[in-house]
Amino acid sequence: MCQLLGMNCNTPTDIVFSFTGFALRGGQTDEHQDGWGIAFFEGAGVRHLVDYTAACRSPLANLIKVNPIKSSNVIAHIRKATQGRIALENCHPFIRECWGINWVFAHNGDLPGFQPVLDGCYQPVGSTDSELAFCYILQELRRKFGTTAPALPALILLLKKICAEIATFGTFNIMLSNGQALLVHCSTRLHYLIRQFPFNTAHLSDQELSIDFAEVTTPEDRVAVIATVPLTDNERWIAFASGELKVFVDGSLYQNE
Amino acid sequence: MCQLLGMNCNTPTDIVFSFTGFALRGGQTDEHQDGWGIAFFEGAGVRHLVDYTAACRSPLANLIKVNPIKSSNVIAHIRKATQGRIALENCHPFIRECWGINWVFAHNGDLPGFQPVLDGCYQPVGSTDSELAFCYILQELRRKFGTTAPALPALILLLKKICAEIATFGTFNIMLSNGQALLVHCSTRLHYLIRQFPFNTAHLSDQELSIDFAEVTTPEDRVAVIATVPLTDNERWIAFASGELKVFVDGSLYQNE
Repeated sequence: MCQLLGMNCNTPTDIVFSFTGFALRGGQTDEHQDGWGIAFFEGAGVRHLVDYTAACRSPLANLIKVNPIKSSNVIAHIRKATQGRIALENCHPFIRECWGINWVFAHNGDLPGFQPVLDGCYQPVGSTDSELAFCYILQELRRKFGTTAPALPALILLLKKICAEIATFGTFNIMLSNGQALLVHCSTRLHYLIRQFPFNTAHLSDQELSIDFAEVTTPEDRVAVIATVPLTDNERWIAFASGELKVFVDGSLYQNE
Repeated sequence: MCQLLGMNCNTPTDIVFSFTGFALRGGQTDEHQDGWGIAFFEGAGVRHLVDYTAACRSPLANLIKVNPIKSSNVIAHIRKATQGRIALENCHPFIRECWGINWVFAHNGDLPGFQPVLDGCYQPVGSTDSELAFCYILQELRRKFGTTAPALPALILLLKKICAEIATFGTFNIMLSNGQALLVHCSTRLHYLIRQFPFNTAHLSDQELSIDFAEVTTPEDRVAVIATVPLTDNERWIAFASGELKVFVDGSLYQNE
């Protein structure tokens, strides 16, 4: 299986603290050593770093820790290969363009028997069912909304339907972002927290490392962090319910209804 | 303007020597300091690194030199912004999927007045005419060949036509790769050389650095290097003719006819 990490903020923030704990699970404190990847939105552009070596030993992962990248939307993934061989094209997150917007996607879970009909608009490059699901999602969004991006509520409505459909095949914990919203669907296991004023000290679960967020933030900052398994042991992480789709915008839960 | 660097080989090779000289032109020995990028094919996957800082001062560019990446197809670009602001989404090379294959593209030149009709299949994320041209190329390839990749000769034939059409708007020096072939179109300035047995010592133009390729190759290795301006001062670089499209496969010129 794999683990997911996502961040959505109202001001560009570096993810070094969370990524430090997360990357250790890529081969050191946990078994997810068959590749990793991270995508940082910066404006409309995306910095997309993937590797098929263990995150805990990757020079590229280390570079991120030494040269913090500030972003308002980040999706990261560490992989324990269950489906699709260990190769660069099978590393999450995946990135595709739709409506002139970059979309980033990562998935945790297997989807046995999932074989949707693709019209060729988006075709998988690798051999994971995850990339296949991503292609299917974008195809269905495009089929419904044509060549122009819909408003967020309409997007959420359709995405809920597509996620529920795909989740009938297996485990579909996903993160999807267009650089504005971070859309998160849970089948089995995901947690989130929102850090905002007044900020406190957080302590990693996977390493003896603490940070006092009061020292590195302004009172206006708001950061949502979503992870398969909580990354800190002294904060209150909220578990997603099965079948739930939550949307984060500007570091807050987006209220659709 | 910008400069391009491409490499196509019959065996995965690191591009550290060429990239070292090339990156210096990104703000040190030349003025191309408004961003840079490089894409390495590894199997079907692509390692895509872009930055809007000067290549000569970039930690990411340094990482490539310290941790050589072996690839059979590489496209790199250093940017002097003339069109489109300095931003991540405007850094070359660009990458898109077509027919389940990753395509990588970089461009040198301006295309005033180029405003093709796009059907929405591929839409630019940034504001460069380069990305617009890339979207148009893929759209036209898909329009002709549908959802299945054609054989290389048919692809080349159509690409020649599309390049000639786009080049009527301005300067269209480009590199395009699907991970197998490196397709290079020249409007004004491009040079190439093929390194093969017997290998010799090469000396960079931009730095006091030599390498004896006989020591780091096997007799079967063959490497084509293509650059806007020759990277070494003691090898015979061949200039492209204006309007020429050359295709490199396995480190050799591909003979279409």
